[in-house]
Amino acid sequence: MVSSTTQSAGQRKQDERERLTKGMEDELGVLSEHPEDHEYLHISPENIVAHLKSRTEGWTAERVMIAFIRAACAAHRKTNCLTEVVFREALEKARRLDKEYAATGIAEGVFWGLPSSFKDTYNILGVDSSLGCSPHCFVPTEKEEEEAILVKLFRRGGGIPFCKTNVPQTLLAFECSNPIFGTTTNPYSSERTCGGSSGGEAALIALNGTPMGWGSDIGGSLRIPAHYSGICGLKPVRGRWPVLGQRNSVQGFEGIRGMVGPMGRTVDDLIFASRSILNLVHSDVADLGFMGEMLIPLPWKEVELPRKLKVGYWTQDHLIKTSPACARAVEGCVKKLREAGHEVVAFQPPDIAEALKIFAGLTSAEGYKSLLSNIGPDPMESSMRLVTLGSKLPGWLHSALVWLVDNFLKDHLFASIFATSRPKSVQELWQFTARRDVYANAFRKLVWEDEGFDMLLCPVQAVPALEHGTTKLLSPLSVATILFNVVDSTVGVLPVTHVNKDLDTHSLDFLDDSQGSWILEKRVYGKDGAYDAEKMHGLPVGVQVVGREWQEEKVLKMMQVLEGLVEYQG
Amino acid sequence: MVSSTTQSAGQRKQDERERLTKGMEDELGVLSEHPEDHEYLHISPENIVAHLKSRTEGWTAERVMIAFIRAACAAHRKTNCLTEVVFREALEKARRLDKEYAATGIAEGVFWGLPSSFKDTYNILGVDSSLGCSPHCFVPTEKEEEEAILVKLFRRGGGIPFCKTNVPQTLLAFECSNPIFGTTTNPYSSERTCGGSSGGEAALIALNGTPMGWGSDIGGSLRIPAHYSGICGLKPVRGRWPVLGQRNSVQGFEGIRGMVGPMGRTVDDLIFASRSILNLVHSDVADLGFMGEMLIPLPWKEVELPRKLKVGYWTQDHLIKTSPACARAVEGCVKKLREAGHEVVAFQPPDIAEALKIFAGLTSAEGYKSLLSNIGPDPMESSMRLVTLGSKLPGWLHSALVWLVDNFLKDHLFASIFATSRPKSVQELWQFTARRDVYANAFRKLVWEDEGFDMLLCPVQAVPALEHGTTKLLSPLSVATILFNVVDSTVGVLPVTHVNKDLDTHSLDFLDDSQGSWILEKRVYGKDGAYDAEKMHGLPVGVQVVGREWQEEKVLKMMQVLEGLVEYQG
Repeated sequence: MVSSTTQSAGQRKQDERERLTKGMEDELGVLSEHPEDHEYLHISPENIVAHLKSRTEGWTAERVMIAFIRAACAAHRKTNCLTEVVFREALEKARRLDKEYAATGIAEGVFWGLPSSFKDTYNILGVDSSLGCSPHCFVPTEKEEEEAILVKLFRRGGGIPFCKTNVPQTLLAFECSNPIFGTTTNPYSSERTCGGSSGGEAALIALNGTPMGWGSDIGGSLRIPAHYSGICGLKPVRGRWPVLGQRNSVQGFEGIRGMVGPMGRTVDDLIFASRSILNLVHSDVADLGFMGEMLIPLPWKEVELPRKLKVGYWTQDHLIKTSPACARAVEGCVKKLREAGHEVVAFQPPDIAEALKIFAGLTSAEGYKSLLSNIGPDPMESSMRLVTLGSKLPGWLHSALVWLVDNFLKDHLFASIFATSRPKSVQELWQFTARRDVYANAFRKLVWEDEGFDMLLCPVQAVPALEHGTTKLLSPLSVATILFNVVDSTVGVLPVTHVNKDLDTHSLDFLDDSQGSWILEKRVYGKDGAYDAEKMHGLPVGVQVVGREWQEEKVLKMMQVLEGLVEYQG
Repeated sequence: MVSSTTQSAGQRKQDERERLTKGMEDELGVLSEHPEDHEYLHISPENIVAHLKSRTEGWTAERVMIAFIRAACAAHRKTNCLTEVVFREALEKARRLDKEYAATGIAEGVFWGLPSSFKDTYNILGVDSSLGCSPHCFVPTEKEEEEAILVKLFRRGGGIPFCKTNVPQTLLAFECSNPIFGTTTNPYSSERTCGGSSGGEAALIALNGTPMGWGSDIGGSLRIPAHYSGICGLKPVRGRWPVLGQRNSVQGFEGIRGMVGPMGRTVDDLIFASRSILNLVHSDVADLGFMGEMLIPLPWKEVELPRKLKVGYWTQDHLIKTSPACARAVEGCVKKLREAGHEVVAFQPPDIAEALKIFAGLTSAEGYKSLLSNIGPDPMESSMRLVTLGSKLPGWLHSALVWLVDNFLKDHLFASIFATSRPKSVQELWQFTARRDVYANAFRKLVWEDEGFDMLLCPVQAVPALEHGTTKLLSPLSVATILFNVVDSTVGVLPVTHVNKDLDTHSLDFLDDSQGSWILEKRVYGKDGAYDAEKMHGLPVGVQVVGREWQEEKVLKMMQVLEGLVEYQG
C-alpha cells in the first residue's frame, strides 16, 4: 500500500521531471532526428574540451550541450535514469560561456564547457537531493556552501552540471528503484537492473547521455552499476577526494566510509576526471574552500608502472560460486596479462566472507533505524528486504532463524553471515570495529607487504546484471565489492567481455564442488535461478582492478594496460 | 580494599623492577657519584649520534648508555617513573654496536647508538605492556611482529629502547598512578603529578633520564604531561605515523583517534625525532613492514615559514577560567611574537565546551565497560571518578543529578557536559559522531580557511601541575587539549615560563566576570582550591602551538620560532 504522501510526492516529482525533459525535447528535438550529434557524443570529455578551446569548426559549448541534452533525454526515455533535470540552466550557462569566449578570448579551466551528470546524492544548487525518498522531496539545496564540493570544483574548472541520476531507495542496494522516480533499467535489457546505487549514472553513461559522471560507493555502489552496465568506474579510498556536500542515508556512521568517484566510458576518461579533480583540489581555484574537510595534500602525480606487474587473481570468493561468464572474464584477463609478460599468480585471500560479516555487523548495528528514517511513509523496496530483515526481527526470532539455517538447513556460511545482521550494543559495535581492523590490516599486510602484489584482479560480482527484483534475497552477492570497502583499497572496474551463451552456460553439476552457501547458490544457479547465460547473452561483464590506498594514478594506469589488452567493444 | 591478585601482581612487578634497577646501580654506580655523566646527558640526541658516529674521544654507545641508565635510575628514584626496565639488554646491545663499528667501520642509521624510553603502551619484545593493570601483567610481547612499529623503526634506525615509563590506570586520566607501579611524581614537586597519561615519560625526560621519548595522546595525554613537567611534545594527527603495536585501553573505539608522538627537552629534539621517523617510514629499512597499517605517503619535507605568521590566540576557553600563570604564558608569547613582527590577533573559537561534550559523549558511549575491563580486580584510581561517574549511575539517577546541577545548583554548563556522559544506543553514538563532524569541520573551516591562520596559540590547561588526587573531580580541565583531538589538529607543546607567585596570584574577585562552570571554578580557585600561585611557584608553564593536520614540519618550525623568542630556562 503506497501512502498518499508518497504517491503525491512521486507524482509531483515525476511531473516536474517530465515537464523539464519534454520542454527540451520540444525545443531542441530528439536524438533520433539528429544523427549529426554522433560527432559530439562519441568523443572523450578531454577532447570535447580541447575542441571547444581551440574553436574547432562547429564546436561551441552550446552545441555540445544541445547534443548531450538530446542524448540524455533519449537515455532517460529508454531507462528512466534521471532524477533532477537542470538542462535549461546548463544550456544558458553554455551560451554565456560561448559569449564570454567570443568577447574576451578567455576559456579557462580543465572542464571548460563540458557537461557532466551527477548521482542524486550530490547536492546541486536549486534542486533536491531526495534519494527517491518523499521526506527529502521539495527541500532543494539553497545555500552555495551546501553544494557538493566536487560539483563546485567541477564548476570552477569550467564544467556545467546538467542533470542528476537515479538511485535505489536508501542507497543500500544494488538495484535502482524507488517510489519517487521509479525504476531505472539496464541499457542492455529493460528487464534487468542497471545496478545500484549509482545506477542511473551508469545507464546514462553507457548510452552516451553524458560525457562522464560521478558516483559514490560504500559497498560496491559505483562498481556494480559499472559492471552491470558495461562502463568504467573508480572507487578511491577516503583522503584525497572531497566528499562533503552529499546527502548520506546514515549520518555519523563511519564503520565503513563511503567514497565518491568518477564514472566514464573508458579508462582514459577516468584518468582525465581524476587528474583534473586532484589537481583542482590543490590549485588556487581551491580558494572556494572545503568546508573544513581534511584532504591529504597529494596532488595528482604521474607514475611509472613496473614493466612486469605482479598480479594476484582469483575467480571464487567461496560464498556464492562465480558464474562461468564472470570467471571467464577474469581468466581472459589473466591470459592476456601473461601473454604481455606480466607475472600473474592465482591467489586466494583467506575468508572473504568475513568481510561481509563485518560489513553486515557494522551497518546493521542500530537496526537500520537511521537508514529507514529516510523513507518516512514510503513503501520499502524489495531489494532492502534481506539486508534489513535480521535487524527487524525480535532477538529470539533472529536467533531461532540463525539456528534453523545452521542446524536444519545446514547452511553454516549463510547462518554465520545472517547472525551478524542484528541490532547491537555500543560495546558490540566496537568489537566489530576492532574485528574490521584486524581483518583489514591482515589483508593489506598479506597482499601488499608479504606478497608484494601491484594489482589484484577479481570478479566484480558472481553474476552479470540481474532481473529487476531478483536481488531481494541475494544481497550477499555484493561480497566481492564489499571486501574492498572493508579493507580500503583503490578499485577500478572496467568491462572486459560479454556474456556468451555458447561459452557461459552452467552445467547441471556446476555446484557439486562448491564450498559456498547452498541457499544462495540455489537461488542463483538452481531451476529458474538468477543466472541464465541464454537470457543474459550479450550483457557486459567487468572485472575489478585493485591497488593500494591513495594510489589512484597507479590503479588507473594498470586499468589502462588491461583495457589495451582486452580490446573490449561496448 | 585492594584484592590479593592486585597486591601480589603489584608486588611481583615492583620487585622485578627494583631488582633490575638496583642491579644496574650496584654494577654501574649511581648518578650522584658520576658528575662526568653531565657531558652525555646535557646534549641533544642528534648530537649524541653525531659524536658516536664521528668517534669523538670518550664517546661510545656503551658510555652513553651507562650515563643514561644511571640518569634514568636517578630519575626513577626521585619520581617513580619507570615500568619496564631493559637496561641490561640495552647495555649489551650498545656494546655489540661498538664492537661492530670497531670491526667494520659501519655505523648506520639516524638513531645509531641512541637510547630512548617509551611510554608503557608501546609493545617491546620480552616485556609487558601492562598499563598498570594486573590482568595485563606477566603477558610479555613475545612475537617480533607484535612489537610497536615505532619501536621497530627506532631499532632499525640504530636506536636502543632501554626502558618503559608509567601511565595512569586505563590511560584516561591526567594523573599518573596505578595500583601496580604506584604513583609517578612531578619532577619539580613530589606532591604534584607529572600529568598523564604519558606522565612517566615526561618526568624521565625532564630529569634528563633519556635523550628523548615517545608518548601518545587521545585527549591531551602527551601534551598535559609536557606542560606539567616542563618539556616539549608533539601530537600529530593520524595518518603519517605508525600507531600499531600499542596496547590500547579500548579496542575498536574510533570516535576519537589516539595518536603517538615524540617528547623531548627542546623543539630541536622533536624535529630530529619527527624527521627521522617520517623518513624511516618511507626508506628501505621500511621493509620491516607495517602490519598492514595505512600510512599517508608523505615523507618529511622541509618547509619555509611565511615571514609574517598570522597567529590567532586565546587565553580563555570559558569553561574553567584560565589561571593568571597560564594566561600570562600565552600573553608573554603574544608580546614576543608581535615584537618579532608577526600578526597576532585575539580570536575566540565558538563554544569550546562543545568539544568536551562530544568527547565525553563518544568515550562514555558503552559505559566504559571495555575501558574498565582492563582493571580486573584492581581498585579504581580516584582520577577516574568523575570521568566514569555518569556512565555508572542508573539512568534515572544520572538524569536527576543533571537536573539538580542545572536547576538547583544553576551550573548549566557543568550540567550540559555531565549530561553527555552516559551509556548510549548505537543510534545515539552515531548522532554524536555526526555532531563531532559538524563541529570539527566548522572549526577547521573557520580557523584555517576563513581566518587563514598559520598558528593558533592557547593554554595547554587552565592550571599548572596539580597535587596528586586533585584531578578526580576536575577532569573537564582537559577541555583545552581535548579540543584538538576532536578537531584533529597538529599540536606542539613547549614550556615558556614558570609560575611566579608575585605575578600569578589570583585576587578574591578573580571569578567575578567568569562565564565558566562555577562548580569547577570553585574547586580550582576557591578556598583551598587547586590553584595556588604561592605553592606553585617555580612550576613550568607551557603553551599549545596548533597547526593543520599533517603539517608537522610547519608546526615544529613555528614552535622553534616561539622557543627562540621566549628563551625559556628549564
